[in-house]
This record gives sequence, structure tokens and C-alpha cells, in this order.
Amino acid sequence: MIEIERKFLVLSNDFLKEVFVEKRIVQAYLNSNPERAVRVRINGNKGYLTIKGKGNETGTTRFEWETEIPIADADKLLLLCEEGIIEKTRYEIKIGKHLFEVDVFDGENKGLILAEIELQSEDEFFVKPHWLGQEVTNDERFYNAYLSRHPFRSW
Amino acid sequence: MIEIERKFLVLSNDFLKEVFVEKRIVQAYLNSNPERAVRVRINGNKGYLTIKGKGNETGTTRFEWETEIPIADADKLLLLCEEGIIEKTRYEIKIGKHLFEVDVFDGENKGLILAEIELQSEDEFFVKPHWLGQEVTNDERFYNAYLSRHPFRSW
Repeated sequence: MIEIERKFLVLSNDFLKEVFVEKRIVQAYLNSNPERAVRVRINGNKGYLTIKGKGNETGTTRFEWETEIPIADADKLLLLCEEGIIEKTRYEIKIGKHLFEVDVFDGENKGLILAEIELQSEDEFFVKPHWLGQEVTNDERFYNAYLSRHPFRSW
Repeated sequence: MIEIERKFLVLSNDFLKEVFVEKRIVQAYLNSNPERAVRVRINGNKGYLTIKGKGNETGTTRFEWETEIPIADADKLLLLCEEGIIEKTRYEIKIGKHLFEVDVFDGENKGLILAEIELQSEDEFFVKPHWLGQEVTNDERFYNAYLSRHPFRSW
């Protein structure tokens, strides 16, 4: 239940050539406080309820708990959420033995593209594709919970 | 997913004579805001995650969504919760065809005893036992989410 992830800005659309999965994501928060974030997500045709704790000092390691829920339940729970629905398209890309998830944001966060990679340890080596930009792992402004309250277009 | 409940103060310990189930409950909130309360509960040897919306005008009807979760997960999620753990013993009592749940609070809420009855409709008839006191259904101070932030002993 501890997740090790690093997050990066994306410099260009070149990642699109390597995509093997594409999904539409709609999500909102029952609590956007990063110390106890509670997220409702519809990912493709599945619903999820996810709870995240605060990250460690470097932002790399974060407690995460998730359960799949019926999509009809997710629809009802989205109605209870705080304002600030996040809409994005997630592209999955394999590079070497690693999976990158690239989120192209829509709506109030249009213009923002973020890539995430999940690792086994904080210092695990991985191949950096040329479209990968600045690391923003420890920058809480790029937490989706923060973006729901302070959308990218208002920055 | 809509729950119809009425809540009452309890005047004496006489309900104890009629108890058929007794369980220890520990719970805390990932969000104590009554518009989108997110509760982690350990009830006996089971864990639950429950989400409640705001009540209607009379406080009787409230959106509720619940899922059972492993007790080990509930233990970890309790650590993320807001301060203000609620501890209570719940007694179940059948009177006529209705079930009363009587919560005897402990810890910071010691001294408070509340009874709840679940109904099929807001005006459904039910037999009132002599130990049932004033109705507090529409008084948000008796929401457990409120009690977690403003415990009874501080009133």
C-alpha cells in the first residue's frame, strides 16, 4: 500500500507514437486535502475509490489504498464531491521494462501534460524518453487534488 | 443508497435488559464535513468505509454508501484520519418489528447515549420504548462527524 512514483512534465506530443492503451478519466475529490485525499474516479468503464496519504520528504513515496466500485456508485459519489472535476486522457506507454502513464488534461486544466512512472525503489534506474521534461515529483501543485482546487488555466 | 433514520436521546439504562447484540465500534473521519463525510469504522471484527451526504431539511433522509474492507486496511486508514476518534458500544434491540441501535459513547464523548431507528418512510409508525427521550434527528451536533471535532465532554 506504499506507492513509489516519480512525476515529470512532458515536452511534446511525441509520446503519442508509442501509446498502447488510451483511457478517458473523470475524477473528483471527497477530500482534496493531500494528507487524506479521497478520490472518486471513473477510468474507462470502471469505477474506483482511492485514498492517499501525504508524500514523504521527496514526494516519491505515498500511502495509497484503492478499491474498485460499481460505475453507477462512482457516478453517485461524484455528485457529492468538492467542486473541481478533473478530466483527462491517460496514455500508457512501455519503455524498456517500465510503464509510463501520460495524462493529457482537459477542461480547466487544458494545456497540462504530466507523465508518471511507478518504481520498485526510489533510486531505480529507468530509460528517459526524449519527450520527458522537468521532474515535478515533490511539487504539490501537480497533485491532482491541488489541480482540482487550483486548475492549471488559473495559474 | 438513501437511508431514512431517526435519532433520539436515551433517558436511562433500561434498554440494556432488551439487548440481543453488543459490539464495540471505533471510527474516525477522512472527512468530517457532513456534505461529504468519509468514515472509517471497525465494528466488532469487521472494517467498513462509509460515505454520507448531507441530510434533507428534516435530517431524516441521507445519502449513504458503504463497503466492507479488510480490518487490516481499516487499521491503516484510521491512521490517516482527522483527529477525534470516536469509541462507542453499540447495542441492538428489537422492539416490535423495528431495530433500535443504541450507542453508548466512550472516551471524549462519555456521557452521551443515542438511539437510532431505520425506517422505510419518514412517517412510518413505530413503538417508542419508555427509555427513548427527545428526538435529535435534525440536530447536526449529534452527527458523529460533528462529535469527532466537538466531543460531548467539551459541550
